[in-house]
Amino acid sequence: METETTDTIIRATGRCLCEYGYADLTMQRIAEESSLTTAAIHYHFDTKEELLNALLDDLVDRFERKLACESDDPRDQLVVLLDAVFTPSNADEFPVALMELKAQAPYHDSYRKRFGELDETLRTVVEDAVDAGIEAGYFDAVDAAEVARFVGTAINGGHLRMVALGQDSTETRQVVEKYLETRLGWKPGASA
Amino acid sequence: METETTDTIIRATGRCLCEYGYADLTMQRIAEESSLTTAAIHYHFDTKEELLNALLDDLVDRFERKLACESDDPRDQLVVLLDAVFTPSNADEFPVALMELKAQAPYHDSYRKRFGELDETLRTVVEDAVDAGIEAGYFDAVDAAEVARFVGTAINGGHLRMVALGQDSTETRQVVEKYLETRLGWKPGASA
Repeated sequence: METETTDTIIRATGRCLCEYGYADLTMQRIAEESSLTTAAIHYHFDTKEELLNALLDDLVDRFERKLACESDDPRDQLVVLLDAVFTPSNADEFPVALMELKAQAPYHDSYRKRFGELDETLRTVVEDAVDAGIEAGYFDAVDAAEVARFVGTAINGGHLRMVALGQDSTETRQVVEKYLETRLGWKPGASA
Repeated sequence: METETTDTIIRATGRCLCEYGYADLTMQRIAEESSLTTAAIHYHFDTKEELLNALLDDLVDRFERKLACESDDPRDQLVVLLDAVFTPSNADEFPVALMELKAQAPYHDSYRKRFGELDETLRTVVEDAVDAGIEAGYFDAVDAAEVARFVGTAINGGHLRMVALGQDSTETRQVVEKYLETRLGWKPGASA
């Protein structure tokens, strides 16, 4: 029950962030969206920052679950990651809302910490999969950390291009896949 | 005199955006910063959006001037581009201020249009230099448009990582240089 209310509030926060944007996100609007009183919201979360931290924690959790891959094959693991990153979310507004939080990160260490965790997770998955793929003889021997840095940078770039330029993520996925093909000698999607 | 006043206002807008952020940027603050009356500001610019468009136009101009390269050697042209993109600006806050405008682009077509122009300029310089370098036998024969897409994506990614994660641009420059080295068979900085 406790958790259920918290979940309701976090989901309402996400929808309000998409609808009103960061500057106009208020406890009042979140209360209305979740059909709770503002007192009930404040009982669970003291400030807007706390609410948004909970939203980001939830996002990190969901992203980590999406990356869970049943296969031991590092090629499958990389494809699962590309799918997790580049499959559009249900809400078209979500990348826009998330970009607002990224733009606010310089003013909120707590947001920055969570974006750092997300980045670390992503890089670790890429680096481990590339190392395992080299070990197994699927990939050319390269610096796995360098590949992970590239993929992390390109994914951030794709997110920003989507928001600032209105470009969909197809081109970024192609850029990343082409890079992996050139670097690893492996064509994503063609394997396993 | 006319142009001088406009320039003063645009520069004050840039400083205010860095200091107060997008949400708290007001005509009043810009007037104070530029030592002009709000009436004088309104005489030149009707709205905050118009002011920010002028700021972005100025940014696009300055960026294009930075890319002007006296050398005909495409390797020099790429180095000039890397320097223009990755040399920190005088104001540390500027990338943060610019990111706020990028995050607002979905709500303002006029910002999006200018970011599109900036992107187009950057890509064209890369694509033309790569094509010229292949022609001259300096670079391996690759798809120049693909290289330009990569560089554009990585530069956006570096900007976002700087703001969201607090990372400096050194790593992004390394990612781009390493990519150019692998793809073109040419090590930036080692040429010309």
